[in-house]
Amino acid sequence: MKRQQFVVIGLGRFGSNLALELMDLGYEVLGIDRNEELVEEMSDQLTHAVVADATDEEVLKSLGVRNFDCGIVAIGNDIQMSILAAILLKDLGIKTVVAKAISVLHGRALEKLGVDRVIYPERDMGIRVAHQLVTPNLLDYIELSKEYSIVEMNVPACLHQKSLGDLNPRARFGCSIVAIHRDGGILVAPTAMDQLTEGDIMVIIGAKKNIEQFETILNQ
Amino acid sequence: MKRQQFVVIGLGRFGSNLALELMDLGYEVLGIDRNEELVEEMSDQLTHAVVADATDEEVLKSLGVRNFDCGIVAIGNDIQMSILAAILLKDLGIKTVVAKAISVLHGRALEKLGVDRVIYPERDMGIRVAHQLVTPNLLDYIELSKEYSIVEMNVPACLHQKSLGDLNPRARFGCSIVAIHRDGGILVAPTAMDQLTEGDIMVIIGAKKNIEQFETILNQ
Amino acid sequence: MKRQQFVVIGLGRFGSNLALELMDLGYEVLGIDRNEELVEEMSDQLTHAVVADATDEEVLKSLGVRNFDCGIVAIGNDIQMSILAAILLKDLGIKTVVAKAISVLHGRALEKLGVDRVIYPERDMGIRVAHQLVTPNLLDYIELSKEYSIVEMNVPACLHQKSLGDLNPRARFGCSIVAIHRDGGILVAPTAMDQLTEGDIMVIIGAKKNIEQFETILNQ
Amino acid sequence: MKRQQFVVIGLGRFGSNLALELMDLGYEVLGIDRNEELVEEMSDQLTHAVVADATDEEVLKSLGVRNFDCGIVAIGNDIQMSILAAILLKDLGIKTVVAKAISVLHGRALEKLGVDRVIYPERDMGIRVAHQLVTPNLLDYIELSKEYSIVEMNVPACLHQKSLGDLNPRARFGCSIVAIHRDGGILVAPTAMDQLTEGDIMVIIGAKKNIEQFETILNQ
Amino acid sequence: MKRQQFVVIGLGRFGSNLALELMDLGYEVLGIDRNEELVEEMSDQLTHAVVADATDEEVLKSLGVRNFDCGIVAIGNDIQMSILAAILLKDLGIKTVVAKAISVLHGRALEKLGVDRVIYPERDMGIRVAHQLVTPNLLDYIELSKEYSIVEMNVPACLHQKSLGDLNPRARFGCSIVAIHRDGGILVAPTAMDQLTEGDIMVIIGAKKNIEQFETILNQ
Amino acid sequence: MKRQQFVVIGLGRFGSNLALELMDLGYEVLGIDRNEELVEEMSDQLTHAVVADATDEEVLKSLGVRNFDCGIVAIGNDIQMSILAAILLKDLGIKTVVAKAISVLHGRALEKLGVDRVIYPERDMGIRVAHQLVTPNLLDYIELSKEYSIVEMNVPACLHQKSLGDLNPRARFGCSIVAIHRDGGILVAPTAMDQLTEGDIMVIIGAKKNIEQFETILNQ
Amino acid sequence: MKRQQFVVIGLGRFGSNLALELMDLGYEVLGIDRNEELVEEMSDQLTHAVVADATDEEVLKSLGVRNFDCGIVAIGNDIQMSILAAILLKDLGIKTVVAKAISVLHGRALEKLGVDRVIYPERDMGIRVAHQLVTPNLLDYIELSKEYSIVEMNVPACLHQKSLGDLNPRARFGCSIVAIHRDGGILVAPTAMDQLTEGDIMVIIGAKKNIEQFETILNQ
Amino acid sequence: MKRQQFVVIGLGRFGSNLALELMDLGYEVLGIDRNEELVEEMSDQLTHAVVADATDEEVLKSLGVRNFDCGIVAIGNDIQMSILAAILLKDLGIKTVVAKAISVLHGRALEKLGVDRVIYPERDMGIRVAHQLVTPNLLDYIELSKEYSIVEMNVPACLHQKSLGDLNPRARFGCSIVAIHRDGGILVAPTAMDQLTEGDIMVIIGAKKNIEQFETILNQ
Repeated sequence: MKRQQFVVIGLGRFGSNLALELMDLGYEVLGIDRNEELVEEMSDQLTHAVVADATDEEVLKSLGVRNFDCGIVAIGNDIQMSILAAILLKDLGIKTVVAKAISVLHGRALEKLGVDRVIYPERDMGIRVAHQLVTPNLLDYIELSKEYSIVEMNVPACLHQKSLGDLNPRARFGCSIVAIHRDGGILVAPTAMDQLTEGDIMVIIGAKKNIEQFETILNQ
Repeated sequence: MKRQQFVVIGLGRFGSNLALELMDLGYEVLGIDRNEELVEEMSDQLTHAVVADATDEEVLKSLGVRNFDCGIVAIGNDIQMSILAAILLKDLGIKTVVAKAISVLHGRALEKLGVDRVIYPERDMGIRVAHQLVTPNLLDYIELSKEYSIVEMNVPACLHQKSLGDLNPRARFGCSIVAIHRDGGILVAPTAMDQLTEGDIMVIIGAKKNIEQFETILNQ
Repeated sequence: MKRQQFVVIGLGRFGSNLALELMDLGYEVLGIDRNEELVEEMSDQLTHAVVADATDEEVLKSLGVRNFDCGIVAIGNDIQMSILAAILLKDLGIKTVVAKAISVLHGRALEKLGVDRVIYPERDMGIRVAHQLVTPNLLDYIELSKEYSIVEMNVPACLHQKSLGDLNPRARFGCSIVAIHRDGGILVAPTAMDQLTEGDIMVIIGAKKNIEQFETILNQ
Repeated sequence: MKRQQFVVIGLGRFGSNLALELMDLGYEVLGIDRNEELVEEMSDQLTHAVVADATDEEVLKSLGVRNFDCGIVAIGNDIQMSILAAILLKDLGIKTVVAKAISVLHGRALEKLGVDRVIYPERDMGIRVAHQLVTPNLLDYIELSKEYSIVEMNVPACLHQKSLGDLNPRARFGCSIVAIHRDGGILVAPTAMDQLTEGDIMVIIGAKKNIEQFETILNQ
Repeated sequence: MKRQQFVVIGLGRFGSNLALELMDLGYEVLGIDRNEELVEEMSDQLTHAVVADATDEEVLKSLGVRNFDCGIVAIGNDIQMSILAAILLKDLGIKTVVAKAISVLHGRALEKLGVDRVIYPERDMGIRVAHQLVTPNLLDYIELSKEYSIVEMNVPACLHQKSLGDLNPRARFGCSIVAIHRDGGILVAPTAMDQLTEGDIMVIIGAKKNIEQFETILNQ
Repeated sequence: MKRQQFVVIGLGRFGSNLALELMDLGYEVLGIDRNEELVEEMSDQLTHAVVADATDEEVLKSLGVRNFDCGIVAIGNDIQMSILAAILLKDLGIKTVVAKAISVLHGRALEKLGVDRVIYPERDMGIRVAHQLVTPNLLDYIELSKEYSIVEMNVPACLHQKSLGDLNPRARFGCSIVAIHRDGGILVAPTAMDQLTEGDIMVIIGAKKNIEQFETILNQ
Repeated sequence: MKRQQFVVIGLGRFGSNLALELMDLGYEVLGIDRNEELVEEMSDQLTHAVVADATDEEVLKSLGVRNFDCGIVAIGNDIQMSILAAILLKDLGIKTVVAKAISVLHGRALEKLGVDRVIYPERDMGIRVAHQLVTPNLLDYIELSKEYSIVEMNVPACLHQKSLGDLNPRARFGCSIVAIHRDGGILVAPTAMDQLTEGDIMVIIGAKKNIEQFETILNQ
Repeated sequence: MKRQQFVVIGLGRFGSNLALELMDLGYEVLGIDRNEELVEEMSDQLTHAVVADATDEEVLKSLGVRNFDCGIVAIGNDIQMSILAAILLKDLGIKTVVAKAISVLHGRALEKLGVDRVIYPERDMGIRVAHQLVTPNLLDYIELSKEYSIVEMNVPACLHQKSLGDLNPRARFGCSIVAIHRDGGILVAPTAMDQLTEGDIMVIIGAKKNIEQFETILNQ
């Protein structure tokens, strides 16, 4: 199977990190920005990086952008450029077009223009960091739905050498420890016999309010 | 237990969303920005929002910032202001100071100055979005370590009505399905008898390379 | 029948003249611009004129914009504002939204966003003036199709007191004189007996190339 | 007969479209602008396009501007440049000088300086569009005088298969249908027997108030 | 006889000194400038001084500018404003309109627009100062024509106690001493008996080349 | 006698005209300005013209400025540059340094720094033009002292063919006609027999108030 | 004896610290700056602080500046303002005028204008810091002449409990220890019996090259 | 012993003078500034001078900055650059890092980041000049402690030919004359027999208040 090719328009902090990670994951990435300095910095880290105006249809055509599988409009603050670039990517026939929005209205415009996925990086990170701040042991989390989530949490001192049977989180708090990450390995679906150790990381699934309750009690 | 109080300095896209989420989670938030317009927009959504220069020690004192539990320096692009505000928050004796960095050097400065946690929102979102782009069924993920991760993934059509016993991901791919999210509920630690349905969301734990292999095969 | 109500966003040279003509034609017009000076100048010539940001949904709602029959986005050079304002007008449910575009790409974006009619005033005037320049007697014209047009033309000295029968444009040039404007009145469907007088204005219909040929011969 | 030569000063949206249309009509056009980018864009679409300061007499002379038949000052917003360029064109002895004005006072200055024709593109387009907006079936129109006009109008559904004899617009509304544009051809001076078809375009001549009355009744 | 009234538009260094001198000479002066600071400085030194835009016809009318005898457009560097203000003054019917020009082309525009007198202050002063620099004894001069001039010159030491008869400038140099300014009085048409004294000022009339020759010999 | 050499610093409107007149008078002129465009325009009209910073001592030395007879600081609006350039010219040992001042305080500074002559071109021209405006027949004048002046005046119609004996200005007005400029020649010390002709130019010497009285009566 | 009064013009970092130190030393200080913010900060720390333009003679007079004993022009970077303010202070008759210069040419101008003392703070501090950097034990120094200086130096460990007799710096290095600062007191003219202690500060007088030699040997 | 090597970042007035003095003292200095003009001026006066961004780690490494003994951050007003450059110098392992601060908060940041010595040049010079202004005979001084100082003072006329025995400053004022600088030589530890001469410079040590008292009496 041929590896996907990505074109990233806008090589600011968000766009450049996205592009670098795609490279790390083994994909081909063409980076485009009007800013010469940004392009130069990226030039030996991406498959290609060019200084170009992404709202100039002829330029995009000459770069062969139509042959890419996915286009990401990661333009920082210029709503006009973001919208015009997104239209061009769609019109060139790129299958998947993803674009960063900086306001709800911007996002609405992008959706109406047929952008497949609209991202709000600053908003999403703001929310994610808020959760981490209020839960000291929380390392990361996935929101499965409005009600359920998975959380990755440090095992606090008060749980050291407690067995899951003793702790019994499902019965007491309505949430389950589905994995324990320890010593560079992973223990999936631990049993009642397994003991927690301070320094372990536990993965918990459950209703948010139950996990929160569990977490609050741990911190008392 | 008294609820924590947060002071958020910088009410741009990242800072304002962080502050709003903290409010949603039930905490008290004081928002500070030099930009009158931003403060006005936030003024009836936060506990307090004030126009102030966060590098003026007297101002921070008069706002009682020293009594807050956690200070977040969410200043966008002005490294100087970010550094001076972070120093003041530390000096005022706030227990936890978190700051956003826009470059590695900026982050290093913040760490040397004693900031408890340095965040790179655009970099982190760039990386996160990259992962989602290359894995069509991937909804979200937690990176447990360099090697292991948890992923939240749509059940694709090809797995419809397959039982976990038939699929046997642990044996075949070395990764485990630890939960299935379905019909607004959650099935923890599913057994070999449980069947997947298109539209379900499955939570998988395992070595990254194994999960990736699993995902690739699904997409063939 | 209730008279239509128009909202004109952008009160520059194009927008203000459009708004004033609508007033002259007996309609109600609400003018909106961010520029205080422009609004002040218009304030006693339009039904209402307000200083407002037309990309702020709340503002448009509070002005009751949803109740207008037709919205015209006449914003000069700011593509971003033009696009966001157009989206809002459509979303507010205004039946007809007309918008000025300053480039083909801008126009394409407006059309994709559902704007009912896109206007290119400078382009259209450029074309119209070009025609008038190359045809000294041409006063105005309507392009009926790629091939046919109606033109309003001065009767040149060489046609003075010629009868239409003598001139016989249909036979000789393949175009017809359908009306003669003279002495403040109008002579529709003139006959072969009718004579042209220098100073009259004649209305000619025909294929463009025929009219052009006719006009060229007149100027020899 | 030698084809006329035009020099267009100012290659913004109005000037460039005017120049392009003149080229399309088969004339020679020299385009002049101080803006290198605009000139470059036009360079292969006009006979010549040069970057030059049109207020420098020596420059205009060296470009041989004195040999052109018609000079068009299409400068956008800079009244000073527009006035100085217009003086130079007149002084160089160009027979016809046309200039765009952006305000009444600007236009007055141009007329006093001997400019042969002053154009107000944005004003004229504003007025033209206003008329089209208030008359849904109106496609275009020529204003013959304060009282009379010719209009190009869609035949609405309610007139489908009506004969002109039945409709009798001259008797009932005081205006005449002088031509019908249909199937890529044109029917001049239609008779009472001719029938209208939805989708036809009819050309109507008459007093404005009569045409308006006719149009209003159609829309009821 | 009623004293003349002057309106001076533009209160920069040239305009303000002109206005002040007119006041000193006993006339009424209305000063107009857009710059508040300049107007304030002049406000108690002129009959009236107002902050106003001199290109706004309504403003000039409301100031009663039409009743002034003479209008001076002393606007510094803004050719556009200078031209528009000059047109308005002429249109308002002011008998004499004088305007400062900063370039030959600007001056030509002003003349074409009917300005009665165009002044080039910097050019004229440049020329005047040049003459004074090359003739050390020269105090001032009037150029009567291309060939003749009157000069005001210090009597140098070498002429001390020389009688005009001895000096005989008419015979020897072709120029005449028509007056001697001495001791606060004036000696008109001095005779051959009159003696020059160092410190006197003599007024000489003649052909320029003769005066120059005379002056050169004095300096030897 | 060797011709004097001048260095003119600042080639704006005043400086360039001064420099050109010095060239016309047959002197050598070195022009210096920081503005490349101004220097280029002058480069083939002056002996030398260079782009240089006149406050850089090394630069002035390398240009051999110390060998010039007279330095003129004609810098427009930059008081700092004017002062520093003036100091350098004095320090380099130039015999005569002349400088333009734009305010009284600026002029005072220049005098204290040893500048030999301070000029106020705009002020002087303002005053001169004021005098010409209030005296319609006045062409030019020299102010001999606070009380006396020489004026060059058109002979008005009312004096046509009057003899000086009849007019007798010395007896009636206390001022003398010392010369009449006529037909390209000059009549020095005219007698009572000489007649004035409309179109002649007369040169009058006398007390200002007497000349003014004479002039006023002429205009009645 | 009445205490001196100082006026400090320019309240930047240099001027404000100078003014504050003068206050500390018990003098009256009037601070003047155009910058409102700087004045406000100083307003309750100086006798008076006013926002004013120090180049406006009337303003300085109305502030009674003529009655001050000493004026300090501490203006940062604006040479023009510095020069004009210095002239005004001298003209107002202030006995001592001190001014900060930012370049040699600026300093020369100030001296020519009669400023009593010209200071180059950044240059002097640059030199002073250079000396401290190259002599680790050096605390401060006074340069008595090109050859001699006094230095304040830490007693290094290698001199601990050495008597001056043993050390004999005059004989061995040609420089004398004239005082020892110890325990908050001072020992003037120490004898050969006195012992140095690590932590003492010694004051040394001598030829620079001798002191340097002494210092170098200590550091070996 | 190898001579120390210094790198000076920021070549403004303070930095350049510091660098030049270090050169004069015989050390090697590398100067770095982003400003090309400043670097060019220094390029032949320092060992090396380069245009570079001192916040780019790669650049500093490639310049071999890690091998220098001492780094001085003399950046003028840009706190951000100052802080980032200071961090890099410390991280590169330079033994001594000195930095200029422009505010107390800036200084605090630098100290926290491990800068070895923070300098406030403008503040220190402000204080030093204040002392010199209030003591007319004071030439320079060293502050030994809060209470003691050494001063260098002119011998005033009133002490001419007084012997130290007569003056007896230790007994009468509690301060000692430890040296007299005279005729290019120096008299250390003068005796009661030594006489002062007007024009000599005396070095006095004592408690500040005693020296001040002594000085005040001299001026009476």
